[in-house]
Amino acid sequence: MDKYIEGFIGSCDSYDESKIVLYGVPFDSTTSFRPGTRFASKAIRSESYGIETYSPYLDLDLEDYKFFDSGDLDLPFGNVNRVLDEIEKRAKEILDDNKIPCMIGGEHLSTLGQFRAIYNKYKDIYVIQLDAHTDLREDYIGEKMSHACVIKRIWDIIGDNRIYQFGIRSGLKEEFEFGKKHTFLHKFDLEGFSKAIEELKGKKVYFTLDLDVLDPSIFPGTGTPEAGGVTFMELLNAVKELGKLDIVGFDINELSPVYDQSGVSTAVACKILRELILIIGKDRL
Amino acid sequence: MDKYIEGFIGSCDSYDESKIVLYGVPFDSTTSFRPGTRFASKAIRSESYGIETYSPYLDLDLEDYKFFDSGDLDLPFGNVNRVLDEIEKRAKEILDDNKIPCMIGGEHLSTLGQFRAIYNKYKDIYVIQLDAHTDLREDYIGEKMSHACVIKRIWDIIGDNRIYQFGIRSGLKEEFEFGKKHTFLHKFDLEGFSKAIEELKGKKVYFTLDLDVLDPSIFPGTGTPEAGGVTFMELLNAVKELGKLDIVGFDINELSPVYDQSGVSTAVACKILRELILIIGKDRL
Amino acid sequence: MDKYIEGFIGSCDSYDESKIVLYGVPFDSTTSFRPGTRFASKAIRSESYGIETYSPYLDLDLEDYKFFDSGDLDLPFGNVNRVLDEIEKRAKEILDDNKIPCMIGGEHLSTLGQFRAIYNKYKDIYVIQLDAHTDLREDYIGEKMSHACVIKRIWDIIGDNRIYQFGIRSGLKEEFEFGKKHTFLHKFDLEGFSKAIEELKGKKVYFTLDLDVLDPSIFPGTGTPEAGGVTFMELLNAVKELGKLDIVGFDINELSPVYDQSGVSTAVACKILRELILIIGKDRL
Amino acid sequence: MDKYIEGFIGSCDSYDESKIVLYGVPFDSTTSFRPGTRFASKAIRSESYGIETYSPYLDLDLEDYKFFDSGDLDLPFGNVNRVLDEIEKRAKEILDDNKIPCMIGGEHLSTLGQFRAIYNKYKDIYVIQLDAHTDLREDYIGEKMSHACVIKRIWDIIGDNRIYQFGIRSGLKEEFEFGKKHTFLHKFDLEGFSKAIEELKGKKVYFTLDLDVLDPSIFPGTGTPEAGGVTFMELLNAVKELGKLDIVGFDINELSPVYDQSGVSTAVACKILRELILIIGKDRL
Amino acid sequence: MDKYIEGFIGSCDSYDESKIVLYGVPFDSTTSFRPGTRFASKAIRSESYGIETYSPYLDLDLEDYKFFDSGDLDLPFGNVNRVLDEIEKRAKEILDDNKIPCMIGGEHLSTLGQFRAIYNKYKDIYVIQLDAHTDLREDYIGEKMSHACVIKRIWDIIGDNRIYQFGIRSGLKEEFEFGKKHTFLHKFDLEGFSKAIEELKGKKVYFTLDLDVLDPSIFPGTGTPEAGGVTFMELLNAVKELGKLDIVGFDINELSPVYDQSGVSTAVACKILRELILIIGKDRL
Amino acid sequence: MDKYIEGFIGSCDSYDESKIVLYGVPFDSTTSFRPGTRFASKAIRSESYGIETYSPYLDLDLEDYKFFDSGDLDLPFGNVNRVLDEIEKRAKEILDDNKIPCMIGGEHLSTLGQFRAIYNKYKDIYVIQLDAHTDLREDYIGEKMSHACVIKRIWDIIGDNRIYQFGIRSGLKEEFEFGKKHTFLHKFDLEGFSKAIEELKGKKVYFTLDLDVLDPSIFPGTGTPEAGGVTFMELLNAVKELGKLDIVGFDINELSPVYDQSGVSTAVACKILRELILIIGKDRL
Repeated sequence: MDKYIEGFIGSCDSYDESKIVLYGVPFDSTTSFRPGTRFASKAIRSESYGIETYSPYLDLDLEDYKFFDSGDLDLPFGNVNRVLDEIEKRAKEILDDNKIPCMIGGEHLSTLGQFRAIYNKYKDIYVIQLDAHTDLREDYIGEKMSHACVIKRIWDIIGDNRIYQFGIRSGLKEEFEFGKKHTFLHKFDLEGFSKAIEELKGKKVYFTLDLDVLDPSIFPGTGTPEAGGVTFMELLNAVKELGKLDIVGFDINELSPVYDQSGVSTAVACKILRELILIIGKDRL
Repeated sequence: MDKYIEGFIGSCDSYDESKIVLYGVPFDSTTSFRPGTRFASKAIRSESYGIETYSPYLDLDLEDYKFFDSGDLDLPFGNVNRVLDEIEKRAKEILDDNKIPCMIGGEHLSTLGQFRAIYNKYKDIYVIQLDAHTDLREDYIGEKMSHACVIKRIWDIIGDNRIYQFGIRSGLKEEFEFGKKHTFLHKFDLEGFSKAIEELKGKKVYFTLDLDVLDPSIFPGTGTPEAGGVTFMELLNAVKELGKLDIVGFDINELSPVYDQSGVSTAVACKILRELILIIGKDRL
Repeated sequence: MDKYIEGFIGSCDSYDESKIVLYGVPFDSTTSFRPGTRFASKAIRSESYGIETYSPYLDLDLEDYKFFDSGDLDLPFGNVNRVLDEIEKRAKEILDDNKIPCMIGGEHLSTLGQFRAIYNKYKDIYVIQLDAHTDLREDYIGEKMSHACVIKRIWDIIGDNRIYQFGIRSGLKEEFEFGKKHTFLHKFDLEGFSKAIEELKGKKVYFTLDLDVLDPSIFPGTGTPEAGGVTFMELLNAVKELGKLDIVGFDINELSPVYDQSGVSTAVACKILRELILIIGKDRL
Repeated sequence: MDKYIEGFIGSCDSYDESKIVLYGVPFDSTTSFRPGTRFASKAIRSESYGIETYSPYLDLDLEDYKFFDSGDLDLPFGNVNRVLDEIEKRAKEILDDNKIPCMIGGEHLSTLGQFRAIYNKYKDIYVIQLDAHTDLREDYIGEKMSHACVIKRIWDIIGDNRIYQFGIRSGLKEEFEFGKKHTFLHKFDLEGFSKAIEELKGKKVYFTLDLDVLDPSIFPGTGTPEAGGVTFMELLNAVKELGKLDIVGFDINELSPVYDQSGVSTAVACKILRELILIIGKDRL
Repeated sequence: MDKYIEGFIGSCDSYDESKIVLYGVPFDSTTSFRPGTRFASKAIRSESYGIETYSPYLDLDLEDYKFFDSGDLDLPFGNVNRVLDEIEKRAKEILDDNKIPCMIGGEHLSTLGQFRAIYNKYKDIYVIQLDAHTDLREDYIGEKMSHACVIKRIWDIIGDNRIYQFGIRSGLKEEFEFGKKHTFLHKFDLEGFSKAIEELKGKKVYFTLDLDVLDPSIFPGTGTPEAGGVTFMELLNAVKELGKLDIVGFDINELSPVYDQSGVSTAVACKILRELILIIGKDRL
Repeated sequence: MDKYIEGFIGSCDSYDESKIVLYGVPFDSTTSFRPGTRFASKAIRSESYGIETYSPYLDLDLEDYKFFDSGDLDLPFGNVNRVLDEIEKRAKEILDDNKIPCMIGGEHLSTLGQFRAIYNKYKDIYVIQLDAHTDLREDYIGEKMSHACVIKRIWDIIGDNRIYQFGIRSGLKEEFEFGKKHTFLHKFDLEGFSKAIEELKGKKVYFTLDLDVLDPSIFPGTGTPEAGGVTFMELLNAVKELGKLDIVGFDINELSPVYDQSGVSTAVACKILRELILIIGKDRL
C-alpha cells in the first residue's frame, strides 16, 4: 500500500528528472499588520486539485511537465535570520543541481533568502517585482529584516538599475522617491512591462510576484489589500511574456488564505502558479 | 390569519395564470470539490427581498408580471437517478401546462433532468450554455452522471451543432478538443454571443446559466471559482439579448451561498434571475 | 505616561488648528435589510493603520495636514429623532468654528442630521450624492425617517435642481420617475460627473458618499450590495475632481464591516477617506 | 400545484384548530451592542428541519399537535413605538381567539408589546424571566424603550412581587438592588426555580426566555454573551416544569444567528421551542 | 530530496510493520441537512500537528507506536454503492493482512462499507455505537442507503442483541421503539457503558464513533448538532475502557470542519483519534 | 472638543493615581501553529464595552477603582529580543512607580519580558501559571525564545519549587517529567489550587493566565485549543482566591479573537480581566 502523498497538482515523483522544484515557506513573523501567509503553501497544494492541469490560455498541460514539489521547510518561528538561512540553503541545493527554484511564500521577506542563493550563482541578475507596495523602506520600527524592506535589502546587494517594479500603489513618500532614483518603479499598473521584457531579453532574471499586486476584488486574501490593482487577465498576460526571458528563479508570496473564506484567492494563486510553471518550464521539458 | 408564505420576490399566488414557473433543486451530490449548491434556492428566495422588483436596466417591474414559485423539490439525497427523475417530472408538469419552467439549482447536473423534459416536448431544441467549465467529460471517476459531464450527456441526446458554449475557461484538453468538433465552444468570454443570437432566432432554445461564468470577484460563492470570467454588466447585456429568442425553459445553477459570507453572490443571482424573468416573460404577460 | 489614543491615521491632537473635523455615527436603527453600519467608524479608525498616510495618486501626505478625529457620538439606539439631533448638534459645533465636518456613518439617514446643520449655515447649498440607490422614497413602511428616504428628506428642505445623483441602479419605479423631474439623477455610473463639477464651481457643495456606489466586487461590506457599480479607480478619479469645488461638509456611509470578513471593504473606505481629506483639505492647510 | 410554504417544523395549516400560534418579530433597533436578532425567526423556521418533531425527552411528537405558524410581522424599522403596537396587535388577535401567542424575537424589548396584550386580558398575570441580564434599567442613554429596560417597563405595569428572574449574572449595581426589593431576582443560575413553580401553580403566568441565559458555550449566537450561564439540560429540565403551570403566553428571544456560524445556537433555539410547544400545548391538544 | 508527505501525526512509513492502518473517506453524498464531512480526513491530518503525540491521560506516546496512514480513497461522488464497495475493498485489504482498519469518515453511511468487510471476517461481531442519532430508519425519502439508516443496515446483517447504542438523543419515535426491541439503545448519555464493556469482554467488537455524540459546545463542527450531548472527558473516559476489549476495527465520522471556523472540533477529533490509536493499539505494539 | 480615547471599560484618566496599570502587547511572532494573539488587546478594549463595570460575583464595581490603561506597545515584529526588552522596559517603569503591571498578551512568551522586570524588583518571587500547556520545552526547533518554552525560561531564572502550574493537559513526555521534578505541576484541572494559595500567603506572587486553560467550549478563540479544560466558573472561583495573596504583577494571554467569530472568547477575557482587576486591586483602592 502506498504512502499518502500530496504535492501541487501535476507534480511528479522524481526530483532528479525535474527542471523546476517547488518548496513552501510557512513564514510570516515580520508581518506587521495581519499575519497568515504561513498557511499559503499548504492551502495552495490542497486547493490545486480544484483546478485542471491543462491551461486553455497556453494550450499546455502540467501532465506533460516534469516538476517536483519538495514540500515545506520546517522553520524556527521567531528567528528571522535562521529562517532566511534555511531558505537560502534550500534554494542553493536546487540551484546546485541546475534546477529552477520556485518558492511559495510566506511573507515577502522570504524572497531575500532565495535571492541570496540566486545572486551567489548569478552575479549579473536582474529582478522583476510585481507588487502593490514599494517594499523599499530602510527599516520598519528599527528592523531592517522586514517584509516592508525586502526590495531595499535586495537593492543593497545588486544596486541601481537592476530592479523593475510594477503595480506599485502604496508606500512612504521617501520610498517612491528612492524608487525614482534607484529602481525602475512603475506606479499603479503594468504599463511599461512589455518594454522591460524587451530590455531584459538574454539576461538572467529573477521574478518575484507579490500577489497583492492583484486588485483585492479578485485577491482579497492578503494581509494588506490595496484597491486599484491589476486584473487577473492583466497579470496573466504579463506572466505570459516571461516566456521570452531566462528566468532562473521565482516566487509567489503574500497569499493569506484565512482572509478569504470563499477560497477565491487561493484558487487564483493556484492558477497563476500553474501558468508560471508552464511558461517558465516550457523550453526545459 | 394567513399562512406564512415565502416565494421569490414579486411571485404571485396563482399557478394557473402564470407563464413562468420557478422551482428549486437542493441537490449537490455529485459535486466533486466543494458542496453547498443545495442551499441556493432557499437563499435566493430569502435574499430576494433585498433587491427591488423594478429593473432600471429594463424599465420593467416584476409587480406587473405573473409568475409562480412552486418551492423546492423534496429529493432523495444519494440517489442521482431518482433525483433526475424527480426534476424531469416537475419540468414535464409545467411544460404540459404550456408554461416555462425555470429551475434554480443545485449543481449543474440538475439541468439534465429538466432538459430531458424539454427535449421530450421540443425535439428541435438548441442549447445556450454560459459556464466557466466545458462540462464535456465522458465520465468522472467512472461516473457518467456527474456535474462535470452534464453538457456531454445533453450532447448524447441532441448531438452535434446544437450547443452554444460561452465563457469556457477550464476543462481537460480533450474536452476542449471535443468542443471544437461537436459544439460551438467559445473560450474565455462572451465573444460571438450576439452572432449566436442571430443564428438562433425563430428556434426553440434552452438556456442554462452556470453562474460561475461570472468572474469570482463578483461571484465568489460557487464551488469551483475560476478567475478571468465575465463581468456582471457583460452578463446582463448578454441576457438582454435573450429577449429576441423563443426560450422554452431555463435554469440558473451553481450558486453555493456558504462560500460567500458577504451575501454578494446570492444578491447577484437574485438580480440575474429577476432580469431573466423580466426578459423571458416579457411577451407572455 | 500618555493615555491610549486612537484616531484615524494621521489625525493630529488639536481641534483648534484643524480645518477638517471627523466624527463617527454608530447608527443603523432604520436599516431594513442587514444592519451593521454601526461598526463602521471604529473599524475605519482601527484599520486605517494598514494604509499609508501618503497618497501616490495625489502626491500628498496626511502628515502634512491638520485634521482632528473627535471620536464617535454616544447615541440612544431606538430613538431616530434624538439621534438626528445629536448629529446635527455635533455638525453645528464644528461649522460654528468654521471647520468642515466629516461624518463617518452609519446608515445613510445619518446624513440628514449633518445636512440640517449645513443648510442652517449655507442656505444656497448643493448636494452631490454617489449611491447605488435613489433614496427617494416618501416613506418606508410608513416611516419617513428611513435610510431609504434620506435624499427625499433633503429634497424636502432644498427642493428642485439642487441634488446631483450618480451611480444609481436600484429603486422603485416611482423613485426614478421622481428623480427625472426633481433631481439630476444619473443612472448606473458616473457619466456626467465632470460636467456637474463644472456647473457647481463657485457654489457651496455638500458631498455624500454612500459607499455602495462601488461595485460589490471591491466593496462587499455593505447592507444591500448592488452589482454593476463603479470601480475603485472610477470613484477615485471622480473624488479628485471635488478639489475644484467648495465642499463645506461631507460624509461617507454604509460600510458594514461585518459582511466583509476579508477586510477589503474597510481598507477601501479608509483609502477613500484619506483621499477625500487630502483633496478637500488641500487649500486649507 | 401548491404554493411554497415554510413554517416551523410540524406546524399545521389551520389557524382555527390550533391552540398555540407562533409569530416572528424581526426587530433589533434598540440593541446597543451587536444587532442581528432580526434574523432569528427566519433562521429558526429554516433550521427547524434539522431537528425531529419527536422529543425523546418528553416522548411527545409535534406531529400529534395542532399549532400554527403565522409568519413574521412586517415592521417599520426605526419607530420603536409603532413596532411595539404592531406586536401588541398581533398578540391581542391571538388572545381574542383564545389561543396562546408564542412570539419569536427579536430583541427582548419585543416582549413588552406582547406583554401589554397579555396584561390587558389577564390583569393578575405573573412573569417568569430566564435571562443573563436584569433588564431593569430605568433608561438607556435617556431612552426608556430599550432592550435593557424591558423588565422594568413590565414592572411599571404590574408592580412588586410579580416577576421571577433566574440566571441573572450581569447588570448595573442599582439594577441588582432594585431586583432585591421589587422582584424575585435569582442570581447566576436556576436555583429556586422549582420552588417558584410551586408558588405559581394555579396562577396565570407569562414566560419570557432570553436565550442568553444559556451558557455561551452552547449558545454563542447572541448579542451580549455572558459566560457562567446554565447548561442546555438545566434549561430543559426547568422548561419541563412549566407543564405544571397555566402559561397564557410566551416568547423566546435574543438569538442572533449571525454570531454563530456553526448553526448550533439556532439548533438549540429550535429544540427549546419544540419542547416549549410540546409542554405548554400538552393539555390543550 | 525527499517527497512531500503528510499523514496523521506520529504515523510511520511502513505499512508492513503497522498494526493499525488509517484511511480517509471523503464522502457525504447522502447527507440530508448540511454536507461537509468530505473535508474531515484532510483537516484531521493537517490539524493533527497542533496536538502532541504524547497523551498525559494515558502516559503513552504515538512515537512509540507503529501505525500507518494510507491516505484518502478516491471516490466517485454520486454513486453510493460504488463508494461503499471501495470502502469495503480497502478495509478487506487491511483485514487480510491481519491489521486493524481505522476509517476516518465521511458521513456515517461510510461505516457500512467497512463493516461489511469486518463481518466477512468476523461473523460473531458486536457493535458499539456512540452517536446523537439512532440511525435506525428503514429508509430516508425512499433511500435505504442513507446516513440516517446506517445502523439499521448493520442490523440487517447481524440482527438482534448485537448493537450497543449510547448517547442517543434524536430520532423518530419509531426508531426509538425499534431500538428498545432490537438493540441495546441507551438514551441521552453514556450510562451503562461500563456494564456493556464487561459484557463484551472476550468478544470481537467493532467500534463506530459518530462524533456528534459530543455536546455541540465542544463539537459544533458537524452537520446536525444536537444539544445535550456528552462532554469530552466523559467520552475520553469511555474510550479508555475500550482497552479491555478486542476491537477488530473502528471508525470516527461526521466531523464537518467547515461549520467550526475556530478549529476546535477538528482538534477534538484529532485528540480522540490519538487516544483511540493509543488504546486500541496498546497490546499490539 | 475632547480627543477620541478608548481604554478598557472603567479605566480612568490618570496614571499617577492608579495602582494597576494595563498595557497591551500585540505580539505573536514565535507562535508555531496559528497566529493572531496580536489582535487580543485591541479586541479586549473594544469589546469591554459589552460587559458591565459591576461584578455581581464580587459585588464590586470598576467605577470605584482607579486603574489606568496605557495602551499598546509599538513593537518591532520579527525581533524577539527587542520585543522582550520593550515589554520589560514598560513593566519596569510601572514597577518603579510602585504600581502593579497588568500585561494583556499577545503570545505567552511576552510573559518573559514582564517577568524579568518583576524578578529584578522581587527576587523572592513565586509564579502561579494557569495553562493547558506545560511550556517547559528547552527549545522549539532550536529556538529557546519560544512560546512553548516560556515557563522553562522563567525556571532558568528562579529555579526549583517556585512555579505552580495548573490545568496542564498537553506537552511532551519530557516536559511532564521535568515538571514532576522541578515545578509543582498539576495535571488537567485546578485541583490543589486552594492548597497552593495557602502555601503562598505572605509571599510575592506573579500570576500568569494562559486563557487556553479554559475549555475550548467557552474559549475557542486561541491558537491551540485543548479540550478537557476548566469551566468559566472554576476559573472564576480560583481567581477569587488570588485576593488572599500579594500579587505584584500579572498577565492574561493567548486570546486570538480571529478564531472565534462569535466574540464569546473576547467577552470571556474581558470578564476575567474585570474580575482580576477588582480582586487584585481591592485593598489598593
